[in-house]
Amino acid sequence: MKSYGPLISILAVIFLAGTCAAMFSEKDNKAETGKQSKVLDEIKKSLGARSILPVPVWVIGSYDKEGKPNVMTSAWVGICCSKPPCVTISLRKATYTFGNIMERKAFSVNIPSESFAKEVAYFGSASGRDVNKFSKTGLTPVKSDLVDAPYIKEFPIVIECKLLQTLELGSHTMFIGEIMDVKANKSILGGDGLPDIKKLRPFVYAPGSSNFYKTGKYLGKVPALAKKINK
Amino acid sequence: MKSYGPLISILAVIFLAGTCAAMFSEKDNKAETGKQSKVLDEIKKSLGARSILPVPVWVIGSYDKEGKPNVMTSAWVGICCSKPPCVTISLRKATYTFGNIMERKAFSVNIPSESFAKEVAYFGSASGRDVNKFSKTGLTPVKSDLVDAPYIKEFPIVIECKLLQTLELGSHTMFIGEIMDVKANKSILGGDGLPDIKKLRPFVYAPGSSNFYKTGKYLGKVPALAKKINK
Repeated sequence: MKSYGPLISILAVIFLAGTCAAMFSEKDNKAETGKQSKVLDEIKKSLGARSILPVPVWVIGSYDKEGKPNVMTSAWVGICCSKPPCVTISLRKATYTFGNIMERKAFSVNIPSESFAKEVAYFGSASGRDVNKFSKTGLTPVKSDLVDAPYIKEFPIVIECKLLQTLELGSHTMFIGEIMDVKANKSILGGDGLPDIKKLRPFVYAPGSSNFYKTGKYLGKVPALAKKINK
Repeated sequence: MKSYGPLISILAVIFLAGTCAAMFSEKDNKAETGKQSKVLDEIKKSLGARSILPVPVWVIGSYDKEGKPNVMTSAWVGICCSKPPCVTISLRKATYTFGNIMERKAFSVNIPSESFAKEVAYFGSASGRDVNKFSKTGLTPVKSDLVDAPYIKEFPIVIECKLLQTLELGSHTMFIGEIMDVKANKSILGGDGLPDIKKLRPFVYAPGSSNFYKTGKYLGKVPALAKKINK
């Protein structure tokens, strides 16, 4: 007859470890719930009228009068319409890109992966008036066939936009661009043929701290999450 | 004289472990670089004119004619000006919130933490015409002192906005709101008194797949990243 002593010992250790882990996990959950309740009751502090929300990071491509391609980083951006599909980007008049878009009536939106964080930071801190940002970073401008603007070959998703209208808001002018096409590297597409955020790995910007943060884990699918409330 | 045998053994193990880790790390880096080069040379695939970029998730608060508070989720949003600080949100005319904002000339923007993912998904799938979304979720509307709109007490950051102007774009109408105040729970503020994204834990939306994704790890500070190029 075989001795089951060692096997029983191993199983006992696994069982004990599991029990301990569950106990700690429960303790953590309780702590979390306690913390959450405290947060829910918290009185809010006024921070004043400021634009300090986490926002996406886009790189805007444009040509100047002489046809020199330029790129700048903007975080005052967003999707603003589904039909026609439109985006909005807001720029200061002092930027080189402002004059370029006014002249060429077109721009590209280039979505960076986290591997391009330093290029994106640089594109937001230097001016196309002083330097050729493509030469400086070694990235490649590609002339769009659809609009009068260049896009960045190496970025995983690029959007070609035709300027629809501008709107003066104060420190910034809003440009509304109609999306003429979205082009993406096949390597960042999911099984459904759409960009897969886990492969794209975009990042967000926290104004104020000037920090970039990566995209994190999957949190859930909207219809399934909504069902948890609407049951 | 003391015996250093055990100490030397421990140091040897640490050294060996470090060397192995470095070797694996280098191997990983090489693999990553190889992959990256392949990606850089990739030909882009056209996905057509679509609004399929990862975007932030905001919950818009408003009152209807009778003063019933309502909330809806929107991802066609963004910051659009620094002075005055303004946000833009785009809504379909069919939404209950559309009529509310037209009537009250005000709205709130409520930034959710990931712990509110199911409420946020629900707010985007039900209509305030049919249900009271506050009652359904147990969240608490707070009347703003500054604008004619409610905000969500339990959400970590809320922004009170006065409607500045609207713009017809097609399927969506753009609302531009001036930020009158940002209010935040102290528990999500960093040492600099500004929202700390690691404490706030906002999430992003991937249109198309309808997935929510968490905010991930710190990627870097913009000036420091830019210096790596601009040296």
